[in-house]
Amino acid sequence: MKRTGGHSVRPRNFILPLAAAFLCLCAAAAGQTADTTTYNPVIRGLLDKGMWSTPAYDLLRDLVKAAPHRLSGSKGAATAVAWMTSEMNVLQFDSVRQEAVMVPRWERGKIERADIVGRPSYRLEVCALGGSVPTPRGGLTAEVVEVHSLQEARALGSRGKGKIVFFNRPMDAREVDTFNAYEGAVDQRGEGADAAASVGGVAALVRSVSLRPDRVPHTGAMSYAKDVPEVPAAAISIMDADTLSARLKRTPSLRVRLRLDCRTLPDVPSANVLGEIVGTEKPRDIIVVGGHLDCWDKGEGAVDDGSGCVQALEALRLIKALGLHPKRTIRAVAFMNEENGSRGGKAYAADPARKGEHQVAAIESDRGCFAPTGFSVDCDSALFQRTERWKPFFKELQAGEWSQGFSGVDILPTVRQGVPGFGLVVESQRYFDYHHSDNDLISAVNPRELELGAITEALLCYLIAQEGL
Amino acid sequence: MKRTGGHSVRPRNFILPLAAAFLCLCAAAAGQTADTTTYNPVIRGLLDKGMWSTPAYDLLRDLVKAAPHRLSGSKGAATAVAWMTSEMNVLQFDSVRQEAVMVPRWERGKIERADIVGRPSYRLEVCALGGSVPTPRGGLTAEVVEVHSLQEARALGSRGKGKIVFFNRPMDAREVDTFNAYEGAVDQRGEGADAAASVGGVAALVRSVSLRPDRVPHTGAMSYAKDVPEVPAAAISIMDADTLSARLKRTPSLRVRLRLDCRTLPDVPSANVLGEIVGTEKPRDIIVVGGHLDCWDKGEGAVDDGSGCVQALEALRLIKALGLHPKRTIRAVAFMNEENGSRGGKAYAADPARKGEHQVAAIESDRGCFAPTGFSVDCDSALFQRTERWKPFFKELQAGEWSQGFSGVDILPTVRQGVPGFGLVVESQRYFDYHHSDNDLISAVNPRELELGAITEALLCYLIAQEGL
Repeated sequence: MKRTGGHSVRPRNFILPLAAAFLCLCAAAAGQTADTTTYNPVIRGLLDKGMWSTPAYDLLRDLVKAAPHRLSGSKGAATAVAWMTSEMNVLQFDSVRQEAVMVPRWERGKIERADIVGRPSYRLEVCALGGSVPTPRGGLTAEVVEVHSLQEARALGSRGKGKIVFFNRPMDAREVDTFNAYEGAVDQRGEGADAAASVGGVAALVRSVSLRPDRVPHTGAMSYAKDVPEVPAAAISIMDADTLSARLKRTPSLRVRLRLDCRTLPDVPSANVLGEIVGTEKPRDIIVVGGHLDCWDKGEGAVDDGSGCVQALEALRLIKALGLHPKRTIRAVAFMNEENGSRGGKAYAADPARKGEHQVAAIESDRGCFAPTGFSVDCDSALFQRTERWKPFFKELQAGEWSQGFSGVDILPTVRQGVPGFGLVVESQRYFDYHHSDNDLISAVNPRELELGAITEALLCYLIAQEGL
Repeated sequence: MKRTGGHSVRPRNFILPLAAAFLCLCAAAAGQTADTTTYNPVIRGLLDKGMWSTPAYDLLRDLVKAAPHRLSGSKGAATAVAWMTSEMNVLQFDSVRQEAVMVPRWERGKIERADIVGRPSYRLEVCALGGSVPTPRGGLTAEVVEVHSLQEARALGSRGKGKIVFFNRPMDAREVDTFNAYEGAVDQRGEGADAAASVGGVAALVRSVSLRPDRVPHTGAMSYAKDVPEVPAAAISIMDADTLSARLKRTPSLRVRLRLDCRTLPDVPSANVLGEIVGTEKPRDIIVVGGHLDCWDKGEGAVDDGSGCVQALEALRLIKALGLHPKRTIRAVAFMNEENGSRGGKAYAADPARKGEHQVAAIESDRGCFAPTGFSVDCDSALFQRTERWKPFFKELQAGEWSQGFSGVDILPTVRQGVPGFGLVVESQRYFDYHHSDNDLISAVNPRELELGAITEALLCYLIAQEGL
């Protein structure tokens, strides 16, 4: 498209849309306070301080350069905790501290390989699922049985004995919201090993939970139940899952050799990192805004969830840069261990330090750093309706689509204590292309989309800090 | 983010949301027809036929492979016309034809270079703006004067004489809708040369109209008024614009040597390409859906606007694949010459063949192939309100944000004849990173986002074909 004259949907200056916002606000709020004189300049200021140089992107680049692999308990995770603590100090937050968390420690090891046995052999791109036991030292070789659900695996009976059970149900590409498609496929990853073991299978091979047909396997958490043997579990890339499926149709007796040398070590100490702008009027009223600092040991965890962490940093930086003095305390939290245990989120909610505090709201960004569209709010309907009065402000940021629903994994233990949770919702088409894989790199991040998420969170933090909920 | 249990905002199956859509529909339509029994299966069918294999992406890959450079009047444009005609035949459209259009022919030539003169010299990444005259054969060397608006250039008076006028006003990064930022900066590109010439300047150097700070210049259309000399005009990459500006602060007398050997040749014949599904009841009632086949001779024109063309193809393919027989004719149009003349759009509106037809609506996709959000509808308020009854269907596709406004450049001449225009609106953050530059490659396209646009257009085409407007 070239220049178009009357192209724009929105007028170029801020005055008209904000006037419109004011009118909507009056209508929506039905008598409630809606101080556009106070908040319109805040919106302008956030865009001014954020969008020219998109500083969140610089923070993210620094983080993934310092610690590209940040799996809980790893050296990279420790580096990330140090980086985050240092960065909060550099940004001169009022209070910066670490909150101790014991975390699980699983290591991928150096060998993860699968081959279709035969001449010619064919290498399948695989990676161990997080939490998997290793194969025997020399690997295991077995016939493969393809299934499309946990139920189908459990119904294999004796046909599963001694086999590698290959879970090949794809994400439902027809779902417009890709998180729905993810939810519909991820049980194979989490419970596939148990289902395989329950019928005497020797391993689980799981189609990567992704929508991009490439040769990059996507890892993620799995766990073992107590009543079945622990068998190794690996993700297979989508293209190789299709190849394996096609080869099985021709040669049902084909065999795959799988080798993994991952292992689980004893729990180790780690930390959440907390940094605050202390409230001027109600310092013990806390608004949490966060993401998770740990990530899988594939790619750089730029999207999941380095971005959520730096957006929280940036939200506080923006508020300080505008010279605002929030009435309630705004606390950025970089949670540890979302990916394989959620220990950080639980530790935060359980920390005795919470006793003297009132958690007003918890906000999380962990759906990727694409263009924000709104919030998924975990609260009662009455409170949700009260948030209506703020939506015109968020429509200015194209983030006015709010709904009631799940907020975020790290803040869930806090939300379960009755604290309203706000999950930043973003455009979802690309997220699972990168998720938990070598595709999750800083190159997948658009600086404007990342920054808009931080600005959206900053605005919500400040509104809650000033107005309460 | 890992698995999240109750994460999803939308239920996983189609039944609940469509039931909700039905209720909204009843409320919104206030007595109007809202045949969910008919259209819900259509939505499901479109997603089913489109999202598993995203065929629009394959079409786009084929197009940009066959004809990556498709500037009007070029060999590539002719190849693209042949490709599109052939593809419409392969897809077995009811009627396929070319509509003759005479188009301008401007050629970039082989030399486009600018250097800061001195020791050491510094090469600035530039490209000729479309329509520019060349420099003298050996180039021109002149001092540079930096301005930030056409007005500032015109006010230079004698200080502009003999200078290269350097327009360095950036897009306003604070605009959330990037098209607003584009509108606010693009006058420098279109009219900078005239403003420079009006004060005796010898050339215009214009900051690329982009939001991504890289060394890739972005071209685009410019034109000359009749009353001033024609001076050469080039775009300079954003990073080099910043460098040049910094160097000028240190050395106001620095000189730049500019060489361009672009040229304008006589107009040549070209064509729009039209393909139809002929309506079963009202074959002369026409719904146009299109994009533009021409593009700049930088990158591959994958985003602007190969995507819009293949989305129109795909919209018709989907409707045929579902076995639907629309009552009115749906016509895909690949318009020629949007970028530097809009001759195709004008020719379509003026073609005597239109006399026997009733243009019911014109739909265009030319804002990039990112995730669709809705439509910008150019029609009267009464008609716009009647479209309300359809929005619940589009909310299912996350494209329910409709507003009144500009629709599209190619369909504008048709819209000016009183035909309602619908411009597909998509998420806008990334568009200008690619626009008119070597960054506009197939690698910038996400197959799901592209396909969702085609599905959104297909649904609108079919609704209008069945229901009228």
